[in-house]
This record gives sequence, C-alpha cells and structure tokens, in this order.
Amino acid sequence: MSDPRQEFSEKLRSLRTKKNISQEKLAKLTKIDRSYMGRVDRGEVNLTFDTLLKIAKALECQPAELMPHIEYNKDKT
Amino acid sequence: MSDPRQEFSEKLRSLRTKKNISQEKLAKLTKIDRSYMGRVDRGEVNLTFDTLLKIAKALECQPAELMPHIEYNKDKT
Repeated sequence: MSDPRQEFSEKLRSLRTKKNISQEKLAKLTKIDRSYMGRVDRGEVNLTFDTLLKIAKALECQPAELMPHIEYNKDKT
Repeated sequence: MSDPRQEFSEKLRSLRTKKNISQEKLAKLTKIDRSYMGRVDRGEVNLTFDTLLKIAKALECQPAELMPHIEYNKDKT
C-alpha cells in the first residue's frame, strides 16, 4: 500500500475537484483553517475522526470513500 | 445519523468479536494503551487517521468498513 495519507489526499482531491469545490471553499465549509486544509489536501496531516467527518459532510460523500485501501497478503490462510 | 463515533465503535466491536479478538489483544496488536483502547471501543475518543489504520490492519479489514454512514437529504436537488 502506498502511503495511506497520500492515498487519502488523492481521494480527497479527486472528490473535491469532481464537485468543483476549491481548497479554500472546503476550508470555509468545514470552518477549518485555510493553511491546515492545504496540509490535509497534501496528505501531510494525521487528521482526526471528527475532522474527517466534517470534510466528508462538506463534500457530501461517505467517509468510507475517502479511506485508503489496505492490501492483505491473499495467500495467508 | 446516530453519533458517528458510536457507529464507528459498534462496527469496531462487531468486527472484533467476529474475528475473536478481545479488546486486550487488539490493544497488544496495535501497541495502543489498553485503557485507551477501551475508550476507543466505547466510541469516546476522537481518534486519529493513523490509529484508525493501525486498528484496521490489526483486524485485517478495510478502514472503510469501520466508517459511519452519513444520511444526506435525498430530495435536495
């Protein structure tokens, strides 16, 4: 698995741009500091559960859609 | 939506018991303090992204499986 935070931020950016929501607008919608949102957007932050939910609500998506995928070793019985 | 943290902890407990992993064992597997894990298990903690991933990996599930579902107002066009 690539860096999970990077995978999260890639999913965040893709959903954000698909919904035409700028970083600035997302910061306003979530009442999260603009520069902190920039760091979230770049996957530089170990964000909290509550912040993750705020972002999902602002994007009107399910929190699960933002989560990274973990590869498990299939042949492990 | 019920309290999202409660919904998270319900999903965590259900996966944990399905896989026969006690709170204590999950605390050991994730190297998270035993009493802190108890609070996570009860939905009392605003846990971080990294902790959420540690828990998902220990349960060998996808982080998305632990996330609460958000109801959006369907008739909002």
